[in-house]
Amino acid sequence: MSLGLVFLSEVFGTAMLTLLGCGVVANVALKGTKGNNGGFLMVTWGWGIAVFAGVYVAARSGSHLNPAVTLGLLLNGKPEYAAGVPVDFASTLTYFGGELTGAFLGAVLTWLAHKQHFDAEPEPANKLGVFSTGPAIRSTPWNLITEIIGTFVLVFVILTFGGTPSGLGPLAVALLVVGIGVSLGGPTGYAINPARDLGPRIAHAILPIKGKGSSDWSYSWIPVVGPLVGGALAGLVGYLPIVFTAAT
Amino acid sequence: MSLGLVFLSEVFGTAMLTLLGCGVVANVALKGTKGNNGGFLMVTWGWGIAVFAGVYVAARSGSHLNPAVTLGLLLNGKPEYAAGVPVDFASTLTYFGGELTGAFLGAVLTWLAHKQHFDAEPEPANKLGVFSTGPAIRSTPWNLITEIIGTFVLVFVILTFGGTPSGLGPLAVALLVVGIGVSLGGPTGYAINPARDLGPRIAHAILPIKGKGSSDWSYSWIPVVGPLVGGALAGLVGYLPIVFTAAT
Amino acid sequence: MSLGLVFLSEVFGTAMLTLLGCGVVANVALKGTKGNNGGFLMVTWGWGIAVFAGVYVAARSGSHLNPAVTLGLLLNGKPEYAAGVPVDFASTLTYFGGELTGAFLGAVLTWLAHKQHFDAEPEPANKLGVFSTGPAIRSTPWNLITEIIGTFVLVFVILTFGGTPSGLGPLAVALLVVGIGVSLGGPTGYAINPARDLGPRIAHAILPIKGKGSSDWSYSWIPVVGPLVGGALAGLVGYLPIVFTAAT
Amino acid sequence: MSLGLVFLSEVFGTAMLTLLGCGVVANVALKGTKGNNGGFLMVTWGWGIAVFAGVYVAARSGSHLNPAVTLGLLLNGKPEYAAGVPVDFASTLTYFGGELTGAFLGAVLTWLAHKQHFDAEPEPANKLGVFSTGPAIRSTPWNLITEIIGTFVLVFVILTFGGTPSGLGPLAVALLVVGIGVSLGGPTGYAINPARDLGPRIAHAILPIKGKGSSDWSYSWIPVVGPLVGGALAGLVGYLPIVFTAAT
Repeated sequence: MSLGLVFLSEVFGTAMLTLLGCGVVANVALKGTKGNNGGFLMVTWGWGIAVFAGVYVAARSGSHLNPAVTLGLLLNGKPEYAAGVPVDFASTLTYFGGELTGAFLGAVLTWLAHKQHFDAEPEPANKLGVFSTGPAIRSTPWNLITEIIGTFVLVFVILTFGGTPSGLGPLAVALLVVGIGVSLGGPTGYAINPARDLGPRIAHAILPIKGKGSSDWSYSWIPVVGPLVGGALAGLVGYLPIVFTAAT
Repeated sequence: MSLGLVFLSEVFGTAMLTLLGCGVVANVALKGTKGNNGGFLMVTWGWGIAVFAGVYVAARSGSHLNPAVTLGLLLNGKPEYAAGVPVDFASTLTYFGGELTGAFLGAVLTWLAHKQHFDAEPEPANKLGVFSTGPAIRSTPWNLITEIIGTFVLVFVILTFGGTPSGLGPLAVALLVVGIGVSLGGPTGYAINPARDLGPRIAHAILPIKGKGSSDWSYSWIPVVGPLVGGALAGLVGYLPIVFTAAT
Repeated sequence: MSLGLVFLSEVFGTAMLTLLGCGVVANVALKGTKGNNGGFLMVTWGWGIAVFAGVYVAARSGSHLNPAVTLGLLLNGKPEYAAGVPVDFASTLTYFGGELTGAFLGAVLTWLAHKQHFDAEPEPANKLGVFSTGPAIRSTPWNLITEIIGTFVLVFVILTFGGTPSGLGPLAVALLVVGIGVSLGGPTGYAINPARDLGPRIAHAILPIKGKGSSDWSYSWIPVVGPLVGGALAGLVGYLPIVFTAAT
Repeated sequence: MSLGLVFLSEVFGTAMLTLLGCGVVANVALKGTKGNNGGFLMVTWGWGIAVFAGVYVAARSGSHLNPAVTLGLLLNGKPEYAAGVPVDFASTLTYFGGELTGAFLGAVLTWLAHKQHFDAEPEPANKLGVFSTGPAIRSTPWNLITEIIGTFVLVFVILTFGGTPSGLGPLAVALLVVGIGVSLGGPTGYAINPARDLGPRIAHAILPIKGKGSSDWSYSWIPVVGPLVGGALAGLVGYLPIVFTAAT
């Protein structure tokens, strides 16, 4: 498969992911929606099914949708990122670029779908919260640790899917993301994906959102670095014989 | 398969869809039910499983259940709507007719199943809400955009199901509908299906519902046109090689 | 398979069904439990998974677990109730007996598991509600209609499972039961199973429950007759060619 | 497979189980998290998916993750605990040791992921509740009975999975655990796993948790003994021909 097609596939898949994922936050957080104040469990189902839909859409490129997954597969020593896509510098950058671009576009669509409720919402922090994560209690080391642990779980368990005949495919990933949300999403809002956080944050900074306030760039590197570290660790620990996902 | 059987199959399937789908809104919205005020997440699971059940019931005709799906398949260039059902003018009208008829009948059954709670409910808007969708903030262009985006997601992701060996079948559609509900249902209540909205609205207009108020016909064309546009776009974008669902 | 084994299998499966099903009501309704006031959605998931577990336990006898299912299969003209179990008068009575016995035993176990919370709960109606259903608004004809519609959906959709290659098996039934609960459970609490309602009601009448109040025998026939009528209708309608479940 | 690998596999799997399982309680119970006060249904989904993830991680050793499961398989007369792992004294101890070690480590990770919220939470009982279960109403016999019944359901239904072609694998176990939680978790918080309760309790006793209070050792034997009795009973009852899981 050509890298152009990989790029396009990841763009579409990650756009689907952030359209639905940011969408559920919009529904819960913005004034006047029908799901307003619908609860954290609803948010986690929304993100889980967002990944579910994104995985189907980007199936041809292996549905990375997440630079932490791409990095984990790289460090795990996989020979291919997807059928016919070798692991090399160009393909890695292609995945990263497609994921970030798609995440940006999906957030723009979320904004359009909820335009009137962005206008009606008085609180700037709620608007940013639709796009990007923020910590419940701000602390560089502890916020990093939470994101590292959450993303480690994501990538490590995904690596085990390959070694077990589950047949659940996208559903297994969806449930895993629901689980990470309810169990490890409390302190930082579980970015667990640099593209999912950075792409929408760029959209927040660029879009003409009424009364939008700060894009909180001082926090923005944590949901990028934390997930990359967590994904990398998972890829490396994936060499353990219990996981059986290393190359050869 | 004969068109009469296609019609009957879509009638039964779409009736099942709206019986259960409108039913969950009745349970949440009408006075005195056991699920009263049960929350938006419950509503979205109800509609998701409503589609799930409808897909099983109408399996023989390909379980369109939705004119936006039929239109998406038409524009995607599929040679058949279901095994042995060619895509042509007569079959297209048969699907549309079956879907609308079934949606009407299902809404009648919902009314019968909740008859006493319709009688007990004082607020006319809550009664209409069981049958048809309405906007949280009324605006022709933005309500249309929300419905277009939601239905695009529905039809586009369904098209990708055909290109991936998921094996989840009706469950995948059910989860997708739950996801669209929690993520994109906030502004307009996610009709994403012209039949699901128009059929029950006709039932609302005809049935002798105590103290029922207006059927809000001024809004009624938006959940018809929006979903048709969204489904059509999804069918056309489905020619992209990442989706691989175009006719060949 | 011998009828004794069919009986035993249905006893175990239906006991599992009512242990978990009545259990979730106990958790939501009785004073001091950890899930107290946990909401209608939790109740419906509890009953859905109760059926899920019961279906696995009674797999050898075809997992009827419900006289309305047995009657629906009988009227649908099935030659066998399960592999090696012919449809005849003796086997039908064996299913009915096993289902009722199991439902009774499961309710006893629910009571034991929540003994202290039954003692702590002051309201007799909440105690009966753990065992058996009751109407939100009492009315013989409308309560019957709601139970007939709900059980029709249950048995009719189960019949379509046989004609579609879903592979979801017990999960499909579980989701269907969740869906019937959220969508049609509002007016009567969705018995949709004569054994599930009558067996626990007998347990309620017999067990030495502290301050238990009436077993509401005047209502008891509705969740028996309504489901039997609904199941019978589904079996008969199942002859329609869209369902394809009639014998031969 | 070597016992060292079995140990490692169960350590990783059970650590994943308690990281996510204790994590959801932390999210719901500790001050200032995003899922604070998120409800019992969210807790049960968190534990269900925790088991789901753990089952994938420990697939190579058969994913016991629970001494009650190991004991149930032993008493059920299974010749092997997993492919290539004979049932004997050494392997049984290896499973027990791996399960307890993993449960301890997972709880430590939960604490790290929620460190700031443990610091912010004023109530010691809420901190212990993240690690270990406690009764709603304290009573040795009734708390034991509840844990015995809950664990019997867990192990007995898992045994039936082997005799039915479900193909759902880890998802079936996840749903079962959700169901036990919502239906039988009300009185004692459903330990249903000695390692899941004792390992984190040891972590609670050892870790330097700010203002942590008592580890409630007087209750600690009940969630060990109750689940072992329940699992043993399930293994023995599993000889019944309806279950078909006994060794032959």
